[in-house]
Amino acid sequence: MNSTVDRVELPEDEAEHLVRVMRLAVGDHVDIFDGRGNIWRAEIVQIGKKSAVVRPIEPGTAARELGVQVSLVVSVLKGDKLDDVVRDAVMLGVTSVRPVVSDRSEIGLAALARGTRIARWRRIAVASAKQCGRAVVPEIYDAAPLDGYFSEKRTASKVMCVEPAAALGEVHPVQSIPKSTAVDLIIGPEGGWAVSEVAAAHDSGAILMSLGSRTLRADAVPIVALTALMTTWGELR
Amino acid sequence: MNSTVDRVELPEDEAEHLVRVMRLAVGDHVDIFDGRGNIWRAEIVQIGKKSAVVRPIEPGTAARELGVQVSLVVSVLKGDKLDDVVRDAVMLGVTSVRPVVSDRSEIGLAALARGTRIARWRRIAVASAKQCGRAVVPEIYDAAPLDGYFSEKRTASKVMCVEPAAALGEVHPVQSIPKSTAVDLIIGPEGGWAVSEVAAAHDSGAILMSLGSRTLRADAVPIVALTALMTTWGELR
Repeated sequence: MNSTVDRVELPEDEAEHLVRVMRLAVGDHVDIFDGRGNIWRAEIVQIGKKSAVVRPIEPGTAARELGVQVSLVVSVLKGDKLDDVVRDAVMLGVTSVRPVVSDRSEIGLAALARGTRIARWRRIAVASAKQCGRAVVPEIYDAAPLDGYFSEKRTASKVMCVEPAAALGEVHPVQSIPKSTAVDLIIGPEGGWAVSEVAAAHDSGAILMSLGSRTLRADAVPIVALTALMTTWGELR
Repeated sequence: MNSTVDRVELPEDEAEHLVRVMRLAVGDHVDIFDGRGNIWRAEIVQIGKKSAVVRPIEPGTAARELGVQVSLVVSVLKGDKLDDVVRDAVMLGVTSVRPVVSDRSEIGLAALARGTRIARWRRIAVASAKQCGRAVVPEIYDAAPLDGYFSEKRTASKVMCVEPAAALGEVHPVQSIPKSTAVDLIIGPEGGWAVSEVAAAHDSGAILMSLGSRTLRADAVPIVALTALMTTWGELR
């Protein structure tokens, strides 16, 4: 969308939300965004049961994006536990979420492909970006095997969360993790990493990071790790 | 319990857990703790359907306690949302949780007193301390009105999480919050603080702290705030 566009037809589900849930009418103002960084103040000019057309009025102000591109590479957790992780990770500013299946994940790639989780995480990412005022919707990738991720060529630096005891190579506290342009933050499942996975991460150049001696719930680790890194890098602002 | 004790009868629910869930028998070893900082390796010497007696063998090693006493003063959230907050706050090392009812809390003190939430949070605190290896069970206080909390004489310094826009007085980023011996971290409900509540906090000497411009879910704020402070203070280790 650019500034010369004067009519935008909203997607059906957004139109329905406007009409049925928010009960807005022609003449009311809404914020719209394209998920790629543009946000606009707009006026509703036409409305149906499941359709709505708006006219952009002026550019809006979106929440600041982070000064570092963080991709959350996260082992798929049990049941719906990754739902809140995706929601909070989007609110904390990640650029993308890459679900991976590792040795001790409770679900395989085939079951994930048959299921509805990935589609749900994408819907959550959109809703969460809207809710926190981000104009960018982080990309949620299809699930991939962890070893496939390690064999990809990535320019981002890699940081893997490990138990302090799981040390192969040096384990660093969060305060010493260097800020770079792009970082992949790699986080394990309920049962933790297999030794071979920590070794593979280490071989692929990942920095091993520990969040301390107290055990956290697997679904709290991504938020704690993201927050700790953001704080260290002065990005929680 | 001190080192001369040679028989400890476990509470009925813990005994039942040992027998029915963990299926342990006489001669097996378990870790026991008194919730006040002592943890022991012990041997089961007698067992019934809902009873168990153990003999302490040697002191165990507990997870390190924080170098700062943090009390989480948190507005009661909707439904069971505070359950995970209590669980994660215990794992992050808080000394106590003080549930408060503020202007925009969705539940009143009378309803809380009639309900089972406080008892549930106490059970969660015990389970969570066990799970993360802490030998200290944080105290979960009865719910109190927020203004009652402000009128208490507290030696702890106070830090209140606020929206950056809600500024009455100066709002500080987390990186500038000073570490002290004891800190009360004060966090609001879904609807945020009333202006008068921020004013009352400010008048009682609280430092106003912002976690940045992106909006977080109310139930993620305590974990993000605790993690950010721990990181700033070098306590995430």
